[in-house]
Amino acid sequence: MAVNFVRPKIPKLASDPWAIQFDSEGRLRHLLTIEGLGPEWVTRILDTAENFMSVTDREVKKVPLLRGRTVVNLFFESSTRTRTTFELAAKRLSADVLNLNISTSAATKGESLLDTLRNIEAMQADMFVVRHDKSGAAHFIARHVAPHVSVLNAGDGRHAHPTQALLDVFTIRRIKGDFTPLRVAIVGDILHSRVARSQIHALNTLNTGEVRVIAPRTLLPADVEKLGVRVFHDMREGLRDVDVVIMLRLQRERMEGGLLPTEQEFFRLYGLTEEKLALARPDAIVMHPGPANRGVEIDSRVADGPQSVILQQVSNGIAVRMAVMALCMARRSEDNA
Amino acid sequence: MAVNFVRPKIPKLASDPWAIQFDSEGRLRHLLTIEGLGPEWVTRILDTAENFMSVTDREVKKVPLLRGRTVVNLFFESSTRTRTTFELAAKRLSADVLNLNISTSAATKGESLLDTLRNIEAMQADMFVVRHDKSGAAHFIARHVAPHVSVLNAGDGRHAHPTQALLDVFTIRRIKGDFTPLRVAIVGDILHSRVARSQIHALNTLNTGEVRVIAPRTLLPADVEKLGVRVFHDMREGLRDVDVVIMLRLQRERMEGGLLPTEQEFFRLYGLTEEKLALARPDAIVMHPGPANRGVEIDSRVADGPQSVILQQVSNGIAVRMAVMALCMARRSEDNA
Amino acid sequence: MAVNFVRPKIPKLASDPWAIQFDSEGRLRHLLTIEGLGPEWVTRILDTAENFMSVTDREVKKVPLLRGRTVVNLFFESSTRTRTTFELAAKRLSADVLNLNISTSAATKGESLLDTLRNIEAMQADMFVVRHDKSGAAHFIARHVAPHVSVLNAGDGRHAHPTQALLDVFTIRRIKGDFTPLRVAIVGDILHSRVARSQIHALNTLNTGEVRVIAPRTLLPADVEKLGVRVFHDMREGLRDVDVVIMLRLQRERMEGGLLPTEQEFFRLYGLTEEKLALARPDAIVMHPGPANRGVEIDSRVADGPQSVILQQVSNGIAVRMAVMALCMARRSEDNA
Repeated sequence: MAVNFVRPKIPKLASDPWAIQFDSEGRLRHLLTIEGLGPEWVTRILDTAENFMSVTDREVKKVPLLRGRTVVNLFFESSTRTRTTFELAAKRLSADVLNLNISTSAATKGESLLDTLRNIEAMQADMFVVRHDKSGAAHFIARHVAPHVSVLNAGDGRHAHPTQALLDVFTIRRIKGDFTPLRVAIVGDILHSRVARSQIHALNTLNTGEVRVIAPRTLLPADVEKLGVRVFHDMREGLRDVDVVIMLRLQRERMEGGLLPTEQEFFRLYGLTEEKLALARPDAIVMHPGPANRGVEIDSRVADGPQSVILQQVSNGIAVRMAVMALCMARRSEDNA
Repeated sequence: MAVNFVRPKIPKLASDPWAIQFDSEGRLRHLLTIEGLGPEWVTRILDTAENFMSVTDREVKKVPLLRGRTVVNLFFESSTRTRTTFELAAKRLSADVLNLNISTSAATKGESLLDTLRNIEAMQADMFVVRHDKSGAAHFIARHVAPHVSVLNAGDGRHAHPTQALLDVFTIRRIKGDFTPLRVAIVGDILHSRVARSQIHALNTLNTGEVRVIAPRTLLPADVEKLGVRVFHDMREGLRDVDVVIMLRLQRERMEGGLLPTEQEFFRLYGLTEEKLALARPDAIVMHPGPANRGVEIDSRVADGPQSVILQQVSNGIAVRMAVMALCMARRSEDNA
Repeated sequence: MAVNFVRPKIPKLASDPWAIQFDSEGRLRHLLTIEGLGPEWVTRILDTAENFMSVTDREVKKVPLLRGRTVVNLFFESSTRTRTTFELAAKRLSADVLNLNISTSAATKGESLLDTLRNIEAMQADMFVVRHDKSGAAHFIARHVAPHVSVLNAGDGRHAHPTQALLDVFTIRRIKGDFTPLRVAIVGDILHSRVARSQIHALNTLNTGEVRVIAPRTLLPADVEKLGVRVFHDMREGLRDVDVVIMLRLQRERMEGGLLPTEQEFFRLYGLTEEKLALARPDAIVMHPGPANRGVEIDSRVADGPQSVILQQVSNGIAVRMAVMALCMARRSEDNA
């Protein structure tokens, strides 16, 4: 299993707020957000993931690329599903994995986040996978870790969830090929969704023909158009002729805040049904980051239907996370070579 | 460490409710219940476990049979002890192990059981070890998993706990040899015990001379005789001349339902003491699936006494679980060969 | 990575209360307390740890010394930080690791400690790492385990925390070399601290010039001088000319018992500030077992300052724990050779 380590040339300016993701040689060190990666790095990650697909398909699903490395899952917000995919990705690269649920351990002893970090670092951790309910947490950690440590953002507040977006574009690329002729619609609670934000950046980075968002006004960020999307409030209009429909998970706790009508009403307006899906192109694919609220944002017949690629997204997620881990660690193998 | 993969010929009828445990080639795919295995498969599992005994005894307790495979412990009912034995068995076969306690993760996000399954499957899991408090849960899961996935029942409601029963007959066979001349008594709460149900099937499958159950009427299922057992309500009568005494764990929560007298009263009538044990054959062995309620169903002098093989059961349990895992996975090695 | 297995000759008397730490051949079997190790064994452990430092520094941080061995973290008192260091140490020796948090598992089923032990033992565990809030728990377990099992004390009540003390003297030795000319001050709640107790024994075992304790009368054990320390109640006096300052973690729950004034008052009297540290030798180092209560026992400028070696302690802790594990297991490799 050879990972191609020839890296794309993208000069980084010191003033670039995303420059932190690269080391002084321009090599990928952290993955915090899609912004700043550029089409070269996004493509490199997808190409590397493609190589790893053969690993996850075969009988012995192991490569020794990260043998002797320690990957620490630092989850300040619990998410079994996301942690599991990172854990499997790391194990398939032969890394040692440590799962730390911070809310239930050091934090209860009044230890500060930085002290926790410094301590785990001192145990020769090589990579932190960070999930946090505060936006910017992964950046904060990346700014403070030792030079040899890489940080992967596994979701921070409303900000970013870059590996989810990468696995989404990876899934689209495997089925649709080129992005330039595609119309992609993202439907649901854009306002609170780190997933949507990262997807929009990834799709635009890859020069997608048209990125649409479909949502009620109350669930859209101000100035959402500046992200490079076309806005629709009517789902039937927005779905017309799209090649890809990405449904977002509705956070039920938002209901209580008065931002949303009832679940029934939301489903009527923005739930994906067979009837609404028929407005998209006949070969349109349906995606969802999971876990889906069936009958709220998506009808079961669609979620389990022939156009759904939801489970392929999950499988692809392992290969994409392996790719990001391998690329960030490749930097250090080069240094030691 | 060679596992003999020549499989016994047992023709499976489409109408056989246990046929689901085998693939279309008649090879073991799932282990859900002892029923339907027949003496050939039970014996094959025990023979394979015998091979693994040398692995667990030696210094480096590893064989690479499941290297690169992912075994997922899917526990909807918490049981550290049972999970631990499956985890150790999988690790000694060099598998990657993922522990998921479902009640505290996806379920809290409203994800359905099937969605959870599909998702873990999509992460290229090879085997699910399932524990659930609903009878039939493991069957349900086995009916819905992808063709490459195997399901092991680690206890479902009151229905079955097949690996426990297999380790019990394995333990008996190691000490007593042939089953045909043996009298085996199972004592305690038969009604609520998945362990007892599986033990009865395993003992009868191996043609045990006489299987007895000893319990008050309130703790026996209706028509228990149809399972092929002789029923005793008086423990002294039931223990007379038996070769094996299997004590069941008393679920204390049953007490509250009024099905049982006090613990003291239960111990007086159905607790195993040295005095009662003296009625069995002098070389009778005492078994218990653990953890034992000392002073409720068993006296400490018996649990720790010379006739007790309770700890041998635990050791044997690792080898038996390794055997079941190896046999279910052998199917796929053959397909890939 | 060769661990030198030539063992120091220290005749063990049957009446020696610490003889339990050695097998009948005088080889290290358990690590329960620093007492009884003698300078030879402490030195051997530190020398072995020194060898392992190169392992934790290199890219592939693995050695196969414990491959196929099962290390069980048996934590009756939760401590993510300590468990993590033992887990990493074991994994870097290629052992399989099982984490059992006992309060939330078997104990809830009413299983006794001994039954739990016997059961895990029967699963062919090779080593128990025990943390318990009762003093003597690790000794109790060591007295009852099977002959092939080793027990490491990861902290028992107020009694001992030997690996912490070993990593502390290891850290001092790496920086200061010889112990005989050194003055070492331990500051804070000596009374309730298993760490302090083990540190005092380790420092005196290595013939440290002067071991001082600095604490209010209410936080000192009766007869503390008998441990071989010089007592100070005034921190400025006690710190004068010391080479090493070891701060203890203040257990905040002690505050409520009336043993202590407010945190502010404690910090004023016994908190380590730059101003107080200036009384020590200019090349004095500052240590803390972590996690530090900043602003209570130590000022952040000191904790993060140039004299602090707190994070080196953490790194060194992995190597020291690897050393103890490797030495205890070496015994069995010899027996099998």
